[in-house]
Amino acid sequence: MNLNGKDQNGTYCFGIDVGGTTIKCGLFEARGQLIDKWEIPTHTENNGRAILPDAAAAIAAKMKEQKLSHSDICGVGIGIPGPVNETGEVPAAVNLHWGYVHIVKEMQSLTGLKVKAANDANAAALGEMWKGGGAGYQNVCLVTLGTGVGGGMVHNGKIVVGSHGGAGELGHIHVSDSISKQCNCGNYGCLEQVASATGITNLAKSYLQTSTAPSVLRDAPLSAKAVFDAIKAGDTLAMEIGEQFGKYLGVALAHTASVLDPDIFVIGGGVSKAGTILIDYVQKYYTKYAFIPSKDTPFALAQLGNDAGIYGAAKLVC
Amino acid sequence: MNLNGKDQNGTYCFGIDVGGTTIKCGLFEARGQLIDKWEIPTHTENNGRAILPDAAAAIAAKMKEQKLSHSDICGVGIGIPGPVNETGEVPAAVNLHWGYVHIVKEMQSLTGLKVKAANDANAAALGEMWKGGGAGYQNVCLVTLGTGVGGGMVHNGKIVVGSHGGAGELGHIHVSDSISKQCNCGNYGCLEQVASATGITNLAKSYLQTSTAPSVLRDAPLSAKAVFDAIKAGDTLAMEIGEQFGKYLGVALAHTASVLDPDIFVIGGGVSKAGTILIDYVQKYYTKYAFIPSKDTPFALAQLGNDAGIYGAAKLVC
Repeated sequence: MNLNGKDQNGTYCFGIDVGGTTIKCGLFEARGQLIDKWEIPTHTENNGRAILPDAAAAIAAKMKEQKLSHSDICGVGIGIPGPVNETGEVPAAVNLHWGYVHIVKEMQSLTGLKVKAANDANAAALGEMWKGGGAGYQNVCLVTLGTGVGGGMVHNGKIVVGSHGGAGELGHIHVSDSISKQCNCGNYGCLEQVASATGITNLAKSYLQTSTAPSVLRDAPLSAKAVFDAIKAGDTLAMEIGEQFGKYLGVALAHTASVLDPDIFVIGGGVSKAGTILIDYVQKYYTKYAFIPSKDTPFALAQLGNDAGIYGAAKLVC
Repeated sequence: MNLNGKDQNGTYCFGIDVGGTTIKCGLFEARGQLIDKWEIPTHTENNGRAILPDAAAAIAAKMKEQKLSHSDICGVGIGIPGPVNETGEVPAAVNLHWGYVHIVKEMQSLTGLKVKAANDANAAALGEMWKGGGAGYQNVCLVTLGTGVGGGMVHNGKIVVGSHGGAGELGHIHVSDSISKQCNCGNYGCLEQVASATGITNLAKSYLQTSTAPSVLRDAPLSAKAVFDAIKAGDTLAMEIGEQFGKYLGVALAHTASVLDPDIFVIGGGVSKAGTILIDYVQKYYTKYAFIPSKDTPFALAQLGNDAGIYGAAKLVC
């Protein structure tokens, strides 16, 4: 693709989502149209010191390919799997083998462009607000049900970072006193232990052990997908698991409404591929436990999938 | 007092806190020094239509008394016991017998001054951030333990209203599945049912009924104050009640940290007169249940008492 005769606005931006294995890159028109996306490998060796130069080189190559000059670009946004403060500093990012990195300073110097940085889960929330399940809203709570449970809060169109980078860490809301296994965070009874892909699998295991009811779940490898497929097939025990999952997540989102009262809840991550039936279980308990003014807050599925991060990163700078 | 020769900044502002019985008024120097405060009665008859004119008249009289002209005043902030949206509209305020009122429009027309309005609990949070227990911080969670449990969230120095005015309504966070009595909000198991003055009394009643342990609480009228006095006197059963109260509130504030991750928690309201021993119980469980980055968030007692509302109202306009 060649952008000669470019967009009327004359401005483009890059959204970069740095993961532990690949760096996802997106070139966007500043109003949010994704023009091109591609990936490069993440080189974590040598304390990940090649990561930002690699990303900068990818940007430079794309600008050359598309015949874009610096004045055509309004900036580069970067999402990182780790805490990022308001000025773009990362104290450490384990998955990238990073110690302290001042992303904004370093990346500005490498690219000569305006740079902003954010935590990747927070960037995904911003992306879903911009062009995904939360489009049209300015106050969005994204909860991501994947290997873990992540989240991001967008307030008045801006990511909420929190005083210690802990805002939107919904996976570690305490939801149960009766879980004896320790969460990865060191606590017991976190939402992540019952509402992530692994958590739902563990919840199902526990139901299968304590119940003698027949269930298709007894005959196949357990997974969150298997549970929701069984629910769709009318399996009674799977429906009980769905109710319990819905209560845990619904109550946690009711807590969220009592604190920040968002315009909309957006549910993403691999588990959310189960679709609207998942939202039905969650919303049932959310509505029951939420405080009166927030009972009708809408729910939506995330729409951008793995691209949420590059969308949100791009939105940081435009 | 006469302000001739006035403050170097030349600017003053009014903070008005409208309650169901009295309207508290404060004249502030714009950097936050309280120069004068007084009260007038709240006339709720005739759908409370005299309330704003009465407040405007009180402001005009004070300006005359202090020889202040309109150009000396940077504005009037008003706190209201009801939901207030970002533009200053109140859909209804039961305690004032109000239906829809556009406070900002009406009060600007009555005073000829810039006006901003907020919910009174949110204004109190802003006041504590400005000149109280949260001074020096920009991200403050105020939780008020009084007849009920109220709260207010301040993010980047501004009140968080929420999409439906529900932000900071910490009293209705669900904390227990084992409470069969209904909360005033219609739900069951709200924080307010166990952490307000009434809630702590009910918690104590339940402990006294189910335990046969001796306790000074068996010999006197029950109240939240009696419980904390008994704790200070070393009463074992009272200490158990303190632990349970601390767990309920500590977990609820850990939820709050997972959503917004404030710089500091400030605890106010009549129950907080128990002092630092109350914070000790809450912080013990907060630290246990909070997610790692937020475990060390500090706690403080509110400092402005009943003046928090006028301070916060004033801060709205300066």
